[in-house]
Amino acid sequence: MPIHDNTVKLISSAKWRKGVFLALAVTCVMAWSLSLWAMPNDEIPYPTGYRQWTHVKSTIIGPKSSLYQQIGGIQHIYANEKGMEGYRTGRFPEGSILIYDFLKTEENDNNPGVVSEGARRFTSVMVKDSKRYAATGGWGFEEFRGDSQTDRMIGADAPTKCYGCHTSQKERDFVFSSYRK
Amino acid sequence: MPIHDNTVKLISSAKWRKGVFLALAVTCVMAWSLSLWAMPNDEIPYPTGYRQWTHVKSTIIGPKSSLYQQIGGIQHIYANEKGMEGYRTGRFPEGSILIYDFLKTEENDNNPGVVSEGARRFTSVMVKDSKRYAATGGWGFEEFRGDSQTDRMIGADAPTKCYGCHTSQKERDFVFSSYRK
Repeated sequence: MPIHDNTVKLISSAKWRKGVFLALAVTCVMAWSLSLWAMPNDEIPYPTGYRQWTHVKSTIIGPKSSLYQQIGGIQHIYANEKGMEGYRTGRFPEGSILIYDFLKTEENDNNPGVVSEGARRFTSVMVKDSKRYAATGGWGFEEFRGDSQTDRMIGADAPTKCYGCHTSQKERDFVFSSYRK
Repeated sequence: MPIHDNTVKLISSAKWRKGVFLALAVTCVMAWSLSLWAMPNDEIPYPTGYRQWTHVKSTIIGPKSSLYQQIGGIQHIYANEKGMEGYRTGRFPEGSILIYDFLKTEENDNNPGVVSEGARRFTSVMVKDSKRYAATGGWGFEEFRGDSQTDRMIGADAPTKCYGCHTSQKERDFVFSSYRK
């Protein structure tokens, strides 16, 4: 009977391995689902590499402005390739990302009137995803404080802090800016 | 003899075609050489597409500056990929192109202190070609007036109008600016 014994052992071993494999697979799927559940569905990723995207235009908010203390300095707008398609066509495709980069400015004491870029105040991000951000015109909004990639200033307040104002631009797909050639 | 006649005709025809082809080829080569001779060897081409290159940094020259009438406004620096390599490594490879884009600024009458970009004053270009521009540190310099791609403001005056000042930056491969992250 040694042959039968071995056959039984082999079958048992194969079953055991299959069982372990299944258990591992189920554990992996559960862990993955849990990670998805743990990440807020509408969280906007930090726009890595945006400084290499196209520079759309810039504005300056000088000391004479009532907004100077809050956001004074120089602001640069950048867009990824899909965002640039949106500026060209007037309709921003899914995946468009627009950046509004707020920097402080520093006047040169030895050279009056010559102003340089200073520290970053925050980086505003708009991401087009019509399904995810259906409640705010198809755009997700976030702001990252200073140079941080994790310190979020908007979070769940996008409807009031961002979209409330952007609704005025509904005819322009909720975007204020234009590309400056 | 009709067969021979035809053969002679065919050979003659082939010789004639070869002759015409050679004459055309020689004419083409001569025309091409002439076009090269007619184009000044050190003429810098207009940097088509630079608005899609990486935005290096910006500066502002405000009304308090003595330079305001001449170059006041906002200035943006752009670099092509090789230029960006230069900013990273400190040595600019052949083919590096750096742009210094001079724009006027316009203050919003209804919104004091809020300043927008205005008309382009001129676009300055630096091109790295160590052989062509050996006399000016390996860099060619040019400026294009307003939005023109042909109205050149520097031409043969690069040694005095540009290089004279850039020599102070010899240790930095003759480049004043740095990439602002």
